[in-house]
Amino acid sequence: MTQVFINGATDAANVREHDSLDASIQELIRAAAEARNHAYCPYSNFAVGAAIRTSDGSIYTGCNIENGAYAVSICAERTAAVKALSEGKRQFVACAVVAQQDNGFTTPCGVCRQFLAEFASNGRDIALYAAKPTNLPLRVLCTSVLQLLPNGFSLSSSK
Amino acid sequence: MTQVFINGATDAANVREHDSLDASIQELIRAAAEARNHAYCPYSNFAVGAAIRTSDGSIYTGCNIENGAYAVSICAERTAAVKALSEGKRQFVACAVVAQQDNGFTTPCGVCRQFLAEFASNGRDIALYAAKPTNLPLRVLCTSVLQLLPNGFSLSSSK
Amino acid sequence: MTQVFINGATDAANVREHDSLDASIQELIRAAAEARNHAYCPYSNFAVGAAIRTSDGSIYTGCNIENGAYAVSICAERTAAVKALSEGKRQFVACAVVAQQDNGFTTPCGVCRQFLAEFASNGRDIALYAAKPTNLPLRVLCTSVLQLLPNGFSLSSSK
Amino acid sequence: MTQVFINGATDAANVREHDSLDASIQELIRAAAEARNHAYCPYSNFAVGAAIRTSDGSIYTGCNIENGAYAVSICAERTAAVKALSEGKRQFVACAVVAQQDNGFTTPCGVCRQFLAEFASNGRDIALYAAKPTNLPLRVLCTSVLQLLPNGFSLSSSK
Ligand SMILES: [Zn+2]
Ligand SMILES: [Zn+2]
Ligand SMILES: [Zn+2]
Ligand SMILES: [Zn+2]
Repeated sequence: MTQVFINGATDAANVREHDSLDASIQELIRAAAEARNHAYCPYSNFAVGAAIRTSDGSIYTGCNIENGAYAVSICAERTAAVKALSEGKRQFVACAVVAQQDNGFTTPCGVCRQFLAEFASNGRDIALYAAKPTNLPLRVLCTSVLQLLPNGFSLSSSK
Repeated sequence: MTQVFINGATDAANVREHDSLDASIQELIRAAAEARNHAYCPYSNFAVGAAIRTSDGSIYTGCNIENGAYAVSICAERTAAVKALSEGKRQFVACAVVAQQDNGFTTPCGVCRQFLAEFASNGRDIALYAAKPTNLPLRVLCTSVLQLLPNGFSLSSSK
Repeated sequence: MTQVFINGATDAANVREHDSLDASIQELIRAAAEARNHAYCPYSNFAVGAAIRTSDGSIYTGCNIENGAYAVSICAERTAAVKALSEGKRQFVACAVVAQQDNGFTTPCGVCRQFLAEFASNGRDIALYAAKPTNLPLRVLCTSVLQLLPNGFSLSSSK
Repeated sequence: MTQVFINGATDAANVREHDSLDASIQELIRAAAEARNHAYCPYSNFAVGAAIRTSDGSIYTGCNIENGAYAVSICAERTAAVKALSEGKRQFVACAVVAQQDNGFTTPCGVCRQFLAEFASNGRDIALYAAKPTNLPLRVLCTSVLQLLPNGFSLSSSK
C-alpha cells in the first residue's frame, strides 16, 4: 500500500477505505459533501462541508462561512454543531468533514476541536471522519475529537 | 413617558411598544424568545435567543453556545445566521435578539455586527429588533445592522 | 472640497488633514504605520498597523497576525491593546489604525470595536484615527470607539 | 510516585519536577507566573499567564484578557505570541503557561494551539510547559505545540 500523508504526517493506521465503512458513516460523509456546496468562502476559495450525527440519529450539516474580518469566520464543523445545539441536541456521536486539499486530509482547526470537545467530556468521545469529496478510490481518516485535542483545556476543573 | 436606557444611553426615539409592531416582527421576536430556551451558557448563565427572517420569508433561530475557552463561544445571532447560510439563504431581512438585562436592551456584540454586516452590503440593510423576554408592557429597540456598525470594516474595497 | 468616501459612505465632517492634527496624534499614526511592517498576512496580503496611547503617555503598537484557520487571526488593534493590557495599562486614550484600501479608510472590525469598548466604559471614550500609509495630502478619519459601536453590548448590566 | 492527573488523564511520563528543568525553562515559567498578575478576567476569575521564548533568546509575556462578549476574549498564550510577532519575531522556541486548576495542568485551548502551530511548521516544533503557580513541590507538564494538535489543520497545502 502506498503511504498516505495527512498534512505531512504518515498516519496510515487510521486511514480506511470509504467502502469499508458502516453505511451510517458513509451517509454522514455524503451529507457533509452536499453541505459543502453552500460554503461562503470568497476570501479563501476553500470550501468545507461538515455533518454531525446526534445520539437520536439525526444529522445536522454545515459549511464554512467567511468574513472580510477573517477572525469572524465560522467553520463548517461549528456551523453543524450550533445547528444541533440550538435545537436541544447536545450528544454528538460522530462528525464528518469534507474538503479538498492535495497534500492530505482536512481536519478540524483548533477552534472546532475545542468547540466540539466541550460536548465530548464525561467519557463520551466523538468519532471524526475526514474525507475528500472526489478522489477515488476514496479513503477516510478515522479519528476522534479527543484524539485531536490531547490533554484538552477545560474550565470545569477550576470550579 | 419614562426614560428608556439602552446600555446606559437614552435612545427613546428607537424604542417602540411591542404591540405596535407588525405581526411578522412580533412573530420573529417570539421565535427568538423560544430559541433562547436552548441556550448553553453554564459559564455566564446569560441566555440569549435570536431569530433571522430571510428574504423568502423563512425564520432561522439560534441561541448562544458557550465554551470553557471563552473565545470559542458563539452568540445566538451567529447561530441563527449560519443556519440560514448553510441552507443557501444569504439575504437577511430582519434579526430579533431576546435576552434579559436589567439596565437596557441586549444588542448584538461587535462580532455579530461584523458577521451580519457581511450580508448587509449593497444597500440591503438588516432590521434589528432587541427585546426582553418578559417585562410588560414589552418595549423593543428598533435599529439595524448598519446603524450598529457605522463606518464598517469591509475587505472588499481593497481588492 | 472633494467628497471623501469612507467605505462607501460620505463622512466629510470627521475627516481632517493630517498636518492639522496635534503632534501627539501624528506621532501615534506614525507609530501605527511603522508597526504595519511586521504584519503577518500571507492569506489576505492586507497589512494593517495600529498604535494605542495609554493614559501615562506610552505608545503600544501592533499589526495583524493571520492564521490558516481564518477565525484564529488577530487584528492590529487587538495586538496593540493586549500588549498594553499585559503590562497593566488599562486606560486607553487614543488608537490609530493604518492600512491601504482604495475606496476609503480602514476602520476597526466589529471584534476590535467590542474588544476596545470593554475599556472605554465609565464615560471614558477612546479617540480613533484611521489613516492611509502613503496617500498625500494625507487625510485622517477622526472618530471614537463608542461612536463606532453605538448601543454597545456589555455584560456588566446583567450582574 | 503518586499518580498525576492532567485534566482527567494520567500522563506521568510527561511530568517533570520543576527543579530538574533547565534554568532557561525555569526562567520562562517564572516570567509566565509574573505576567499572570496582569490578567483581566472579571468574568471567569481564572487568571492565566504565559511566556514565549523566541529564537534570539528574548522572552515575551502575556496574560488572558476577557470581554463581556466572551468570544472576544484573548488567552495568555496568544497575547504573548502577538507581542513577539508584532516586533518581527516569528521563531518560537518554547512557551510556558501558568494557571491554577485543582484537577490538572492548564494547557492551551484549541485556539491557541492553532495560533501557535502556524509558527511551528517546517519541522520546528515549539516546546510547551504547563505549570501551576504555587503548588510545591512544583511539577511541570512538558509537551509541545504539535503534540497538542495532532494531524493539525493547515491551509498551506491547498495552495
Ligand atoms: Zn474550524
Ligand atoms: Zn455576538
Ligand atoms: Zn479587528
Ligand atoms: Zn487559548
